[in-house]
Amino acid sequence: MNQHAFEIAGVSVESLREKYQTPLYVMDQSNIEAKCALFKQAFKHQTLNTEIIYASKAFLTVAMARLIDEQGLSLDVVSGGELYTAMKAKFPASKIYFHGNNKSDDEIIQALHYKVGHLVLDNPDEFKRLSRLIKPNESINVLIRINPGIEAHTHEYIKTTNHNSKFGMSIFSPEVIELIHQMKGHPNIHFNGFHSHIGSQIFESKAFMESAKVVLNFIKEVYEKTGVLAKVMNMGGGFGVVYTKDDQPIDLNLFFPELLDFIDKTSKSLKIDAPKILIEPGRAIVAEAGYTLYTVSNVKHTYGGKSYIFVDGSMADHIRTALYQATYDAVIPNRLDSHEKKVFTVTGKACESGDIIIKDILLPTPHENDILIVKSTGAYHYSMSSNYNRLLKPAVIFVKDGKSKLIVKRESYEDLIRNDII
Amino acid sequence: MNQHAFEIAGVSVESLREKYQTPLYVMDQSNIEAKCALFKQAFKHQTLNTEIIYASKAFLTVAMARLIDEQGLSLDVVSGGELYTAMKAKFPASKIYFHGNNKSDDEIIQALHYKVGHLVLDNPDEFKRLSRLIKPNESINVLIRINPGIEAHTHEYIKTTNHNSKFGMSIFSPEVIELIHQMKGHPNIHFNGFHSHIGSQIFESKAFMESAKVVLNFIKEVYEKTGVLAKVMNMGGGFGVVYTKDDQPIDLNLFFPELLDFIDKTSKSLKIDAPKILIEPGRAIVAEAGYTLYTVSNVKHTYGGKSYIFVDGSMADHIRTALYQATYDAVIPNRLDSHEKKVFTVTGKACESGDIIIKDILLPTPHENDILIVKSTGAYHYSMSSNYNRLLKPAVIFVKDGKSKLIVKRESYEDLIRNDII
Repeated sequence: MNQHAFEIAGVSVESLREKYQTPLYVMDQSNIEAKCALFKQAFKHQTLNTEIIYASKAFLTVAMARLIDEQGLSLDVVSGGELYTAMKAKFPASKIYFHGNNKSDDEIIQALHYKVGHLVLDNPDEFKRLSRLIKPNESINVLIRINPGIEAHTHEYIKTTNHNSKFGMSIFSPEVIELIHQMKGHPNIHFNGFHSHIGSQIFESKAFMESAKVVLNFIKEVYEKTGVLAKVMNMGGGFGVVYTKDDQPIDLNLFFPELLDFIDKTSKSLKIDAPKILIEPGRAIVAEAGYTLYTVSNVKHTYGGKSYIFVDGSMADHIRTALYQATYDAVIPNRLDSHEKKVFTVTGKACESGDIIIKDILLPTPHENDILIVKSTGAYHYSMSSNYNRLLKPAVIFVKDGKSKLIVKRESYEDLIRNDII
Repeated sequence: MNQHAFEIAGVSVESLREKYQTPLYVMDQSNIEAKCALFKQAFKHQTLNTEIIYASKAFLTVAMARLIDEQGLSLDVVSGGELYTAMKAKFPASKIYFHGNNKSDDEIIQALHYKVGHLVLDNPDEFKRLSRLIKPNESINVLIRINPGIEAHTHEYIKTTNHNSKFGMSIFSPEVIELIHQMKGHPNIHFNGFHSHIGSQIFESKAFMESAKVVLNFIKEVYEKTGVLAKVMNMGGGFGVVYTKDDQPIDLNLFFPELLDFIDKTSKSLKIDAPKILIEPGRAIVAEAGYTLYTVSNVKHTYGGKSYIFVDGSMADHIRTALYQATYDAVIPNRLDSHEKKVFTVTGKACESGDIIIKDILLPTPHENDILIVKSTGAYHYSMSSNYNRLLKPAVIFVKDGKSKLIVKRESYEDLIRNDII
């Protein structure tokens, strides 16, 4: 965003408000494309094969699935609804990875019907379910989700403590080996490799290195015990993004070559053919591309001395502050020249004290009708939005090269009751 | 719920699953009606006028608004969307109270258009906004939301500390008196009284008594300073409900007569005409009437020793555990005779470690396809539901006298993309 012209991707936020109203989710398409390019550029290696899969739960619409396809990335879906959306976008099914700890029969049937590239099996029960549902003329590749016992937090990681996740199977449990034995001779379910995911919003590269080492050693162990060599190592996502200036993500241009070299070397020292390496960025592709535009309706100074900025959105379009105590940065384009700032809490319309968009942020005092922009709202905002208080989900637009494009219409009051039996 | 027959309001949960599938929001209509009757019966007095207003943000659909009207309660709405829903249900506008800290121009215009009974003004700015928008041929009654400086928590309350809420105006601030002076001569905006709300899920009756005393004293002060006597004292809601057996709500049949007598006596000793007393139960009307029916898909024991029950819902239909660390009780009707229980975490389909429906609950081990019922999900479940992970919002049904009735259809995949520009 060019703050001096109050523009996102060459479009003034005033003109966006005029055209689409607020609250509005603005996605900078050029930023998404740049992030995809960065991943494609940085996550490659002279000898290893690599693949980048967009984790669509961060933000998915039909237009977004098309954009991801145009950018040459694969797609991670976690539900029938995400798969349906991808299919409506004519996303190539062979490039889809279907995740989830708890897939329904209907979702497995749907995945088989559309011939998705890979199903990521969470547990032995899912294999049974898949075996029961797959028809003789169908076939599917599977990854097995494993838990390498590493849990990465923002600035640290803990090894061999996280054996209680709901996801996947521990590498220390015999059930992974047993499962691979069971799959070995299966005529139409083909084991291709492992998936693991060690956390979200990670700023510490060592955790990924450690995870790679542990999984490669496990691949070797599985090979020795079953004769089956994993062809794919899917390392999941978790690459940190900038919400506020305190967030300092890993430099992926430096880190990825280092990681891939390490994987290459480790594979060689383990004397196994290096697997194809997959990663699944979601937040890292879209978070920083997103801006929520609000209109300020009022400033309130309480008797107790607290100052609020009231905007026309709410926790219904921005749940992460209430849900995860997430922090955000905001700008008031009209007041960029103002040097007098004070601490405000940005809150919305919801009838609830937890309705906080940003807690305690230093901002100039806005006037009624000013635009307030919350930054880095591209991930887990539209996708987590609700109709709490019967508020309407905002429209979503793409902006690029000075042009804007509506990709999801604002909800209407009619939408609220469309499924009511009247 | 009659556990022995696995019935809710005379309907077996098995038959409900067969007819409507899971996840399913089941509302026991007879329980809602009983709660309305309890409030009407208990919240009345030989000399004071009273009114019971359902706080619809807890749960609102067209059918629910109709039921509330049939039960003779008034309605509290907090947004244009809630008002729209009430209007679609032909709810009498004169019995509607329009709340909110941050109403838009459009919402005020909508409230005037439909002639809602009362607008609850949050702050002086809203009065300016209303004055600017009201047409000469329109008129409206208003309450002013005040903050009595009392904050009630579940088992305690704190007096004169909460002056930093985003809602209303402090009774210690001169702006309330100034606002009443401004409204005094207004031709079509009629001040009728005050609204206050001291908290949610309150189990301590003293907080309500204290609040009544403070507000009555304030009414007297306002009368002396402005010559305007409030005719209405709206005490808001906050009456606690049972989520688990640890919750012990106030006995309203004992408490309300005591509260109303206290208000009557206090008014007399202050030598003011007692105002009409309003309360706004939301959760207390619907929470315990609601049950979420899930189907168990799997039981997972982790390498670390934790046990999960996987059900076919998620935090998308049940956000309060993740959002407020709320606690719930559950039953597995098929296993009621089982004496062997262990500690499970009930989790769903969402691809996120925060996807917890109930943390650490003692339950018998279910089998695949068992029904698992989460209790007391009538408030803030359907109303807070989202499409996170592109999961579909469950259907909502009413049950009564052995019969079930669909009131909101289950969402379809088509619903997910209905506003996408394709």
